[in-house]
Amino acid sequence: MMARLYPDGMHGAIAAGLTELLGDRVQVRSVTQDQPEHGLTEEVLNDTDVLTWWGHATHGSVDDAVVDRVYARVLGGMGLLPLHSAHFSKIFIKLMGTSCSLAWRNSGDTELVWTVAPGHPITEGVPQPIVIEEQEMYGEYFDIPQPDEQIFLSTFTGGEVFRSGCTWRRGKGRIFYFSPGDQEYPVYHHPAIKRVLANAVLWAAPSPSIDFVAPAVLSQPAPRFDGRLAAQEVTA
Amino acid sequence: MMARLYPDGMHGAIAAGLTELLGDRVQVRSVTQDQPEHGLTEEVLNDTDVLTWWGHATHGSVDDAVVDRVYARVLGGMGLLPLHSAHFSKIFIKLMGTSCSLAWRNSGDTELVWTVAPGHPITEGVPQPIVIEEQEMYGEYFDIPQPDEQIFLSTFTGGEVFRSGCTWRRGKGRIFYFSPGDQEYPVYHHPAIKRVLANAVLWAAPSPSIDFVAPAVLSQPAPRFDGRLAAQEVTA
Amino acid sequence: MMARLYPDGMHGAIAAGLTELLGDRVQVRSVTQDQPEHGLTEEVLNDTDVLTWWGHATHGSVDDAVVDRVYARVLGGMGLLPLHSAHFSKIFIKLMGTSCSLAWRNSGDTELVWTVAPGHPITEGVPQPIVIEEQEMYGEYFDIPQPDEQIFLSTFTGGEVFRSGCTWRRGKGRIFYFSPGDQEYPVYHHPAIKRVLANAVLWAAPSPSIDFVAPAVLSQPAPRFDGRLAAQEVTA
Amino acid sequence: MMARLYPDGMHGAIAAGLTELLGDRVQVRSVTQDQPEHGLTEEVLNDTDVLTWWGHATHGSVDDAVVDRVYARVLGGMGLLPLHSAHFSKIFIKLMGTSCSLAWRNSGDTELVWTVAPGHPITEGVPQPIVIEEQEMYGEYFDIPQPDEQIFLSTFTGGEVFRSGCTWRRGKGRIFYFSPGDQEYPVYHHPAIKRVLANAVLWAAPSPSIDFVAPAVLSQPAPRFDGRLAAQEVTA
Repeated sequence: MMARLYPDGMHGAIAAGLTELLGDRVQVRSVTQDQPEHGLTEEVLNDTDVLTWWGHATHGSVDDAVVDRVYARVLGGMGLLPLHSAHFSKIFIKLMGTSCSLAWRNSGDTELVWTVAPGHPITEGVPQPIVIEEQEMYGEYFDIPQPDEQIFLSTFTGGEVFRSGCTWRRGKGRIFYFSPGDQEYPVYHHPAIKRVLANAVLWAAPSPSIDFVAPAVLSQPAPRFDGRLAAQEVTA
Repeated sequence: MMARLYPDGMHGAIAAGLTELLGDRVQVRSVTQDQPEHGLTEEVLNDTDVLTWWGHATHGSVDDAVVDRVYARVLGGMGLLPLHSAHFSKIFIKLMGTSCSLAWRNSGDTELVWTVAPGHPITEGVPQPIVIEEQEMYGEYFDIPQPDEQIFLSTFTGGEVFRSGCTWRRGKGRIFYFSPGDQEYPVYHHPAIKRVLANAVLWAAPSPSIDFVAPAVLSQPAPRFDGRLAAQEVTA
Repeated sequence: MMARLYPDGMHGAIAAGLTELLGDRVQVRSVTQDQPEHGLTEEVLNDTDVLTWWGHATHGSVDDAVVDRVYARVLGGMGLLPLHSAHFSKIFIKLMGTSCSLAWRNSGDTELVWTVAPGHPITEGVPQPIVIEEQEMYGEYFDIPQPDEQIFLSTFTGGEVFRSGCTWRRGKGRIFYFSPGDQEYPVYHHPAIKRVLANAVLWAAPSPSIDFVAPAVLSQPAPRFDGRLAAQEVTA
Repeated sequence: MMARLYPDGMHGAIAAGLTELLGDRVQVRSVTQDQPEHGLTEEVLNDTDVLTWWGHATHGSVDDAVVDRVYARVLGGMGLLPLHSAHFSKIFIKLMGTSCSLAWRNSGDTELVWTVAPGHPITEGVPQPIVIEEQEMYGEYFDIPQPDEQIFLSTFTGGEVFRSGCTWRRGKGRIFYFSPGDQEYPVYHHPAIKRVLANAVLWAAPSPSIDFVAPAVLSQPAPRFDGRLAAQEVTA
């Protein structure tokens, strides 16, 4: 099924959508898990502004050293877009601090993706709702920290609900999780889904002047003020 | 329909549910819009810890002076539970700063109320999901500020979604909006809905030591420190 | 003092800073309270993407009809930057739903403005901290809803703290409150303050495709699904 | 210094404060890092509702297996109070998903702890501000996710600011980080600090009916609705 729907792989379809909509505004490269260091070498990461992450079934075999490298880059300012089953990727769990577990069922439900943050850049040009005729169902309870911004909520034919589009900041980096997208359904060929991903790449991109240095302890040598507690104020 | 489902009025049903579940922990009183000052006199408000607010169709005729009085009391610490069509009450709009508009349809949809904040006191003892067999549909986009805490999300047979349980703090007061509850359906007789309301009353109750004084400008006479800017730090 | 520090008025200084840093990216116009409709006619607002609002002492005499007009425009997507004592403007209070009161003292404190959201576009190119040698003190408790994003925190020589840079979304519009800026101190000539305002204008600008229509009630005629409750699921 | 200020250890002082203020409402036990499994055996954790965590300098030698056990318990509903330098504990970093780094200086600064969430249960009975005459300085940028609720902000004589009291929910558990408290200063003997800790223990305590089971994947067998997409709605 996946081979028929995605002859160029999931990464190929995602990359094609970004290129189609963003053209010269982005340079898109793909790496895959079977490459050395999963293709995410220091050199590659150092040249990446926004990383999309799609994975399935083999999250456990992702190298912890690579996860740590991506993590440091996100805290330093790189945007990250974990997609669909990347809710269970090591990098997403590490950034969230929760189990990221959810309810699911694969029975060809229709998914409706509703915008609850109109005016947010990620929602630009997106219909209300996006109709995905067939999709795997992801449902609540989705064990994530409360999102900084709730962008999309999805419903399914079966009556379930899912926080399908969420943003968080971690360090200097911006994260957008977006759940639609499964290897058994042509979701990444859907015009509105391509639009969301393109919008999200622009939103998650760091400023051109970012240094990508993760926050670290600062031993602050000198006070800014030479103040003292005003004597009359000692009230505790 | 309303008279048959709610022979004691909406307020009677809500009050009965609270008394049933909370017993001696609360003293429940009801006031109605047709009373002088809608029953919300200074004296009554000064003796109220948590106010539930249900209204329908006649929000426009609520006296602005009473709204201002309730508003000041909320900022001072009183809990407020706007219920169902109280999304369009003057007091809720004034506290939110948005239009509080939404999508709706009255066609007897089933509503499923999903918990997305397990462990929150308002969700204690609540099934996942609550099943309300027939309800008016309230859908997104619901024009509210992003909730401080998203507690419940509802789906409807028609595929719509709604942020049906939301909390905000305003001043010292706590607000919980909860959408299930309509005069044409027996929603307030539903055991799980009664449970949510009882939980929310306990959650929204101010501490026993609260003074109910709304925040006001403070002309702070003296500095806490007698500090000065350390000369070497003037870098701007 | 104000005439000497701000020979072109506060609005003149703010406009000059934006023009200096943003050049052709913006068209800056100024209106003043003494103009008919305070200069904020339908026509002017319909041609405004982001509105900065500075006011002092005469907030009470701002026409409610103009406030309502600005409010509708913000909910429709216009960015709003309430500055300094605009914490007490009618438009800010209406959008916040709180008293917006605070503590203050005018004794020439030094203010340090600390970034707590590095990587946020509003903080780009801003030193840590911004040092403002002399400023009016604004302190907590500042009676606002918890910000969607806390961007800056300020301290003062006297030991006070203030949530000096905060964002909220209301409807489709983005709001950034920024407290530094007083008529008795040359704050709007400070390079870092000018930088923050320029960043904020870009951040608050709506997407080019925005329609500026405030959210309104939608009577949704037809369900998306023709679902029914699956019989075995009636558990409540 | 620590031995003189805290003859019963940090844990002894914290426990004494809780017992003094909460009496029969709590049963307080202490464990220390040098015990087998740091004293945090399955049995002990299974009998713990709220865990306070103070540590210094030896975070790196805490056993990962114990950290994982505490983590699962928090997601299942146990409250957690990381105190002071526990910002660098493995458990806090794992729950936050960030580096939790900060700026610091040990020069006997006075710390003022300002309430920015009046009416929150953690702030009950707390003066505005709390004055701590001598303390280690912790300053921004503090690399944490934006708190769900910002409760306290601290300033220091040197002009620095710190988000000193913050809450987050993770899974079903509640977390309150509170920075005042250092082994070289008598902070945990301060009446207002003891009050904050006692309030926080009550706030973080799970409901009596909590099952302490961490969220996990749910393979949801049956749809709630047997709905289908209404034909006319296929608009994508």
